[in-house]
Amino acid sequence: MNPGLRYSTISFLTDYGTDDEFVGVVKSVIRSIEPDVTVIDITHAVPPHDVRAGSLTLARAAQYLAPGVVLAVVDPGVGTDRRAVAVEVGQGQSVLVGPDNGLLAAAVGMVGGADRVVELTNADYHLPSPGSTFDGRDVFGPVAAHLCAGVDLEELGELVDPLTLQPGMIPLPFADGEAVAAQVLWVDRFGNAQLNVGPDDVDHLGELVTLRFHGQTRIARRATSFAELGPDVGLVLDSYGLLAVAVDRHSAAAELRLATSDEVKIEPLADGDAPTHGAGPVPVDIR
Amino acid sequence: MNPGLRYSTISFLTDYGTDDEFVGVVKSVIRSIEPDVTVIDITHAVPPHDVRAGSLTLARAAQYLAPGVVLAVVDPGVGTDRRAVAVEVGQGQSVLVGPDNGLLAAAVGMVGGADRVVELTNADYHLPSPGSTFDGRDVFGPVAAHLCAGVDLEELGELVDPLTLQPGMIPLPFADGEAVAAQVLWVDRFGNAQLNVGPDDVDHLGELVTLRFHGQTRIARRATSFAELGPDVGLVLDSYGLLAVAVDRHSAAAELRLATSDEVKIEPLADGDAPTHGAGPVPVDIR
Amino acid sequence: MNPGLRYSTISFLTDYGTDDEFVGVVKSVIRSIEPDVTVIDITHAVPPHDVRAGSLTLARAAQYLAPGVVLAVVDPGVGTDRRAVAVEVGQGQSVLVGPDNGLLAAAVGMVGGADRVVELTNADYHLPSPGSTFDGRDVFGPVAAHLCAGVDLEELGELVDPLTLQPGMIPLPFADGEAVAAQVLWVDRFGNAQLNVGPDDVDHLGELVTLRFHGQTRIARRATSFAELGPDVGLVLDSYGLLAVAVDRHSAAAELRLATSDEVKIEPLADGDAPTHGAGPVPVDIR
Repeated sequence: MNPGLRYSTISFLTDYGTDDEFVGVVKSVIRSIEPDVTVIDITHAVPPHDVRAGSLTLARAAQYLAPGVVLAVVDPGVGTDRRAVAVEVGQGQSVLVGPDNGLLAAAVGMVGGADRVVELTNADYHLPSPGSTFDGRDVFGPVAAHLCAGVDLEELGELVDPLTLQPGMIPLPFADGEAVAAQVLWVDRFGNAQLNVGPDDVDHLGELVTLRFHGQTRIARRATSFAELGPDVGLVLDSYGLLAVAVDRHSAAAELRLATSDEVKIEPLADGDAPTHGAGPVPVDIR
Repeated sequence: MNPGLRYSTISFLTDYGTDDEFVGVVKSVIRSIEPDVTVIDITHAVPPHDVRAGSLTLARAAQYLAPGVVLAVVDPGVGTDRRAVAVEVGQGQSVLVGPDNGLLAAAVGMVGGADRVVELTNADYHLPSPGSTFDGRDVFGPVAAHLCAGVDLEELGELVDPLTLQPGMIPLPFADGEAVAAQVLWVDRFGNAQLNVGPDDVDHLGELVTLRFHGQTRIARRATSFAELGPDVGLVLDSYGLLAVAVDRHSAAAELRLATSDEVKIEPLADGDAPTHGAGPVPVDIR
Repeated sequence: MNPGLRYSTISFLTDYGTDDEFVGVVKSVIRSIEPDVTVIDITHAVPPHDVRAGSLTLARAAQYLAPGVVLAVVDPGVGTDRRAVAVEVGQGQSVLVGPDNGLLAAAVGMVGGADRVVELTNADYHLPSPGSTFDGRDVFGPVAAHLCAGVDLEELGELVDPLTLQPGMIPLPFADGEAVAAQVLWVDRFGNAQLNVGPDDVDHLGELVTLRFHGQTRIARRATSFAELGPDVGLVLDSYGLLAVAVDRHSAAAELRLATSDEVKIEPLADGDAPTHGAGPVPVDIR
């Protein structure tokens, strides 16, 4: 490894998809500036322009990322006067580079907050470009590469007050008597619907709980693996320490018609209720 | 390259998809443990929980993989007492790491069988985790990285008898008089339907054969390239040495409605039959 | 980095997709031949057999690629007598490797034309193979790796006249009085429809223009960012210096039913016309 490198890893997240050449072109630009950097793709399948989804994905990944530069681009305001920023965290252990539109906020919070923030106004570290619609290639990617190569953060533009960064928006659950009003943060590839509640939020409700969401009522079982659910709907402790609505070997989201941002109310079990099966075609309706 | 590395390549296959951050997080964990390793993605698009498809994909790739660690995770039983294992093959040339559910079996067989097998019970080489649903991040990825870094296989847990590994399930064709009863192993991106038969199994039937599958009858031509088929349905020698049902520049699977695991009977040509065209909308029915 | 390397980067584009193991297997073969090479994926989602789309994608990316080998495979004629070639450009700065079917032509043109061309007839640098349907693994990938390792271009086969290379097909716009008859070259992930015209081609028409395409008529506004469009349809200067039909935060292609290869006529504004909104469900019809 090049001993002159300040950072050797760029963790890369976008809404570019991989059907076009966008991701490959950004990596090519990075490699032309600093060949000794390794780029790790977090994902490029954030839904187009979905800053909230990108921000939650980045926050989930944040604690596992290798030290270095985090390059994150979900940027519907590209070409406008929204700021482009680099945010130093962890006493210089990592720098997050991207648009200042809330995308970085949750991840920055997860790792202890911003130490220094620079607005990326120094065009010496950008690529000249015919248009202004691809800042991943022309601004953020080059800046990430130059940071790895050892360029000082404050060379990249003016220091700005970290308090002026756009905040993120992670919804909090709230208590409603014994019940908890939760929200689906994320549906993963397997159809597990992650809620914004941890085990402590619902431990008082016991092993079986009632879930209510857009007209449906389901009995769910608390569990730590999918397999122990059998045919039941479950509230499984997921790999990030939150609870997810899940069904064993099937998509809970598809079977229960749950989607990101849906409200799910978690209530105590009513007398006489028993677990309902995930695969049943007809939702149970309790009047 | 770091001279202390025992293995420098991790070949990585999962059913995680690339829409979520799962693959990127596992790579980040690997890089944090051992930065000098190169990870090569085989694919992450194994259908969710489809151990059979993952096992066949791994077996096809096996003979081409660079020596090193093979990290394979299709793991519907995560969080249960299914074993997590590392399987050494080729006198230590490679180690396959994954769940003991049949996923690794066909690949292990392709490269000469298991030399040593360890159950991954030593938590010193795992990541502490809030949940038990993401062993790729918490168990298999870290173990793969530690193996590359030089940790001895037997440090990772207890040796177990290779004969106790879950077997794989590759279906064999069988002869029915002159005919051969085959099965579709795999439909690739181009719509070619790979069968579980090689050229030797059907050479006695000549250049033109009859294919029968779920009510359809098609005449197919043996070929070594797609282009030589013209408008005919073909049985093409594929890149793994097996025969695939194919149509030039079109998807045979879509046109003939063939899917993985379908039975295809290969029979001698009946008198008077002529090749049928792939693109025809109406299947030929011979009574 | 290995000081014996002639090239250290392979930029890789195919129509293989990433659902199968094809891309991973080619990378494994490359790594087995020359471990010190970095492979950058441009994209593997070129539509199957679509040489034109692959050629345009490669041409867009070309000017940004790191020096080295460009490995490009969209190859419906695999297994026939179409030539396999390596094309040296930029006085040896890069070599493009792939089938001679027009795929490489536009990119070669973008970077100044071919210096030397070799037909890849020397089987010493290929992989022995059971079939002849996967030249990415058996011919192009190994050749790319051997080039990086320092094998001389002329070792790989016979020199052929660059003028015998298959030409590419980039459609040119043409003037029709004041109007310009354009064509959609590419629809990107965000639904922007790139046309084959630059700003100079339509500057004489002013800030507002009329677009006509398959029965629809739309007023479009010239712009340099998506956000400044508001609800209007736009002709935005894209990141490659061409004009794209675009709508802010929505897919212009979906809303206007535009697809690759569609003709779009750009005309002066008729008297009394005003911009039409992108999101309206009913196209404006001017008789």
